[in-house]
Amino acid sequence: MSEVSLPAGFLASGLHSGIKRSGQPDLGLLVCQQPAVLAAVFTTNRVQAAPVKLNRRRLEHERARAVVVNSGNANACTGERGLRDAEQMAVLTAQALGVEPEEVLVCSTGVIGRFLPMDVIARGIVEAAGRLSPEGGADFARAILTTDTRSKIAERIVEIDNRRVRITGIAKGAGMIAPHMATMLAFITTDAAVEVQYLRAVLSQVVSRTFNRITVDGDQSTNDTVIALASGRAGNQPIAATSPQAEIFASALEEVCRELALMIVRDGEGAQKLVTVTVQGAASAEDAEKAVRAVAESFLVKASWAGRKANWGRIMDALGYSGAEVSEEKVDIYYDGVTAVSGGTASDTPVEKLQEIIQQPEFTVLIKLNLGPHSATLYTCDLTEAYVRINM
Amino acid sequence: MSEVSLPAGFLASGLHSGIKRSGQPDLGLLVCQQPAVLAAVFTTNRVQAAPVKLNRRRLEHERARAVVVNSGNANACTGERGLRDAEQMAVLTAQALGVEPEEVLVCSTGVIGRFLPMDVIARGIVEAAGRLSPEGGADFARAILTTDTRSKIAERIVEIDNRRVRITGIAKGAGMIAPHMATMLAFITTDAAVEVQYLRAVLSQVVSRTFNRITVDGDQSTNDTVIALASGRAGNQPIAATSPQAEIFASALEEVCRELALMIVRDGEGAQKLVTVTVQGAASAEDAEKAVRAVAESFLVKASWAGRKANWGRIMDALGYSGAEVSEEKVDIYYDGVTAVSGGTASDTPVEKLQEIIQQPEFTVLIKLNLGPHSATLYTCDLTEAYVRINM
Repeated sequence: MSEVSLPAGFLASGLHSGIKRSGQPDLGLLVCQQPAVLAAVFTTNRVQAAPVKLNRRRLEHERARAVVVNSGNANACTGERGLRDAEQMAVLTAQALGVEPEEVLVCSTGVIGRFLPMDVIARGIVEAAGRLSPEGGADFARAILTTDTRSKIAERIVEIDNRRVRITGIAKGAGMIAPHMATMLAFITTDAAVEVQYLRAVLSQVVSRTFNRITVDGDQSTNDTVIALASGRAGNQPIAATSPQAEIFASALEEVCRELALMIVRDGEGAQKLVTVTVQGAASAEDAEKAVRAVAESFLVKASWAGRKANWGRIMDALGYSGAEVSEEKVDIYYDGVTAVSGGTASDTPVEKLQEIIQQPEFTVLIKLNLGPHSATLYTCDLTEAYVRINM
Repeated sequence: MSEVSLPAGFLASGLHSGIKRSGQPDLGLLVCQQPAVLAAVFTTNRVQAAPVKLNRRRLEHERARAVVVNSGNANACTGERGLRDAEQMAVLTAQALGVEPEEVLVCSTGVIGRFLPMDVIARGIVEAAGRLSPEGGADFARAILTTDTRSKIAERIVEIDNRRVRITGIAKGAGMIAPHMATMLAFITTDAAVEVQYLRAVLSQVVSRTFNRITVDGDQSTNDTVIALASGRAGNQPIAATSPQAEIFASALEEVCRELALMIVRDGEGAQKLVTVTVQGAASAEDAEKAVRAVAESFLVKASWAGRKANWGRIMDALGYSGAEVSEEKVDIYYDGVTAVSGGTASDTPVEKLQEIIQQPEFTVLIKLNLGPHSATLYTCDLTEAYVRINM
């Protein structure tokens, strides 16, 4: 989707301010014409970028007006000066928009450990404020990218109280993606009226089922942030947890977030394939998680997918060291539903049949441990030479 | 070292039997002329290759006579048939040598999930038995390699009870190396007389400080094995834990094992650099381990070393998601003793100075968390495009 229709009440813009030497867009503004109900989820990394620290404080307020985002520099590991710079980004944005600094959130993504070029950013913010428009979503989507190869936009339109409600999500991802948030930014806008407690609860639930179930390289970033803003302009009855419409809203939000999350994996650094790995039959929920993560994050398993080989031995190996309870002779493994391993050893399926499946751009790996009722799924990608080249 | 002097009492051989299509050596025999005191340590992977299962049972006996090793096929995930094949390798070797099958250990390394070509192996064992010689160590060392680019041999000679005692180690490694053993085989031979309880205790201690402190890709293999055999031919008083000579023997054994372990990392698949990562000042021993492992196994950190960049931001990021207690503003990081990070932010050291260090084939990374007295070290390598190519 190259066009973006922002929900009623939202304006956006994006441009090249001068942070990236490449000349690519690096500064974006997303603004609501009235105070929007605010929800947000942040990285669980104990090293947190300055803007993440600032945004956490913003959650003391129920509403916000704007998000300013720069790419090319993460403003992480920048100490007191980094915090002052993040504050200053909020102040400059508030001045340009005529709102309060406390109503502005700040996101940064890019290289860790360098100070922001504040003069360049100050000029960029003024210019970006002047370019705000309801059609600015596509420019905003481009301005937040780093090593991404394409913009990531998803939307759903649902009917609530006979009103047409739009949910639009814009994200960036690429490398350093792992469960529990990664260098991943996502901005969800909606014109639905939503009560603040409910928006915060449902966003948290949805993130745990979508963005937190993807992994590119197992690395978790210092900057990950998902922000949701609800303008209320659709005119529906404000949605609360007990509302009959809550289910409709939650489903649409989850679809938007899952679509964005899968776009991030498909566009993982150097990735050629989207692989959905599911572990079933684990003895405990913790075991299911350990097993699925060991497989989906193994260098060797991911490199074998790049090579188009159905190297299930590496999956068995990863299960073995995962820490989960595993009985080798009970393990069954399926690629796209076709049996590769039965009772811990090779099935009768011809190798060529399995290679065919692995050569597709998207396939599933189902692992049955046959020890209990617990399961877990992760969305991941292959490990290619291009990944290493990008990150050298 | 291309020449190998096996300790008194040992013979070895190695040849191409036909398992590897490349024509490279793939079968080795290591034999003691009298029953040797036996110690061994195995993979902690819950999926264990057939020969590992067989070798575990061999530890019920105090002594052994021979080890037969094949490369090119791991005999893992091969079920009952794999177990019968491993048993058969022991029987064939025992017949060729005129010893009991219970005196023969079996090791396999290579691809997981395929059955051994037993006809080829049977012929190979007979031929290898015919070629046994005190000078056969170099051939044996070559026959156990898989993706290794070179043989790995280390030795120490020490004086115990006025006797010259030799400890010779031969290993293979390459990919899938992680703490707690990996596709790594190591065979330690010595002519020292050592009591069985002490040999087993000291081998276990030494392995935890050497082979278990290296990591190439974080993957742990189904086949890892370290076997020690002591012929006693040096004629010293048998060494026990309380012997005054125990310290001398233990130190020499540790030196041999550390030298082999570092050879394995240096020859990691595609590796160009040996990096020693140390975490100091952790709040607990567990935290030190979590932190050092997150850094030494991060795709992004390792890829940055391949690119010759001192990208310490990725180290900060890995510390943050490691699960260890970390206070960002207390973290100091040094490359080869030169400060890169001070109090969680960039030091005054010029970037060029740090780049210079990273461009060396070997360097150290010291991370001070400044929260407590605990420390941990791992030996690791960079992640290169060649690693991915080898494993595709």
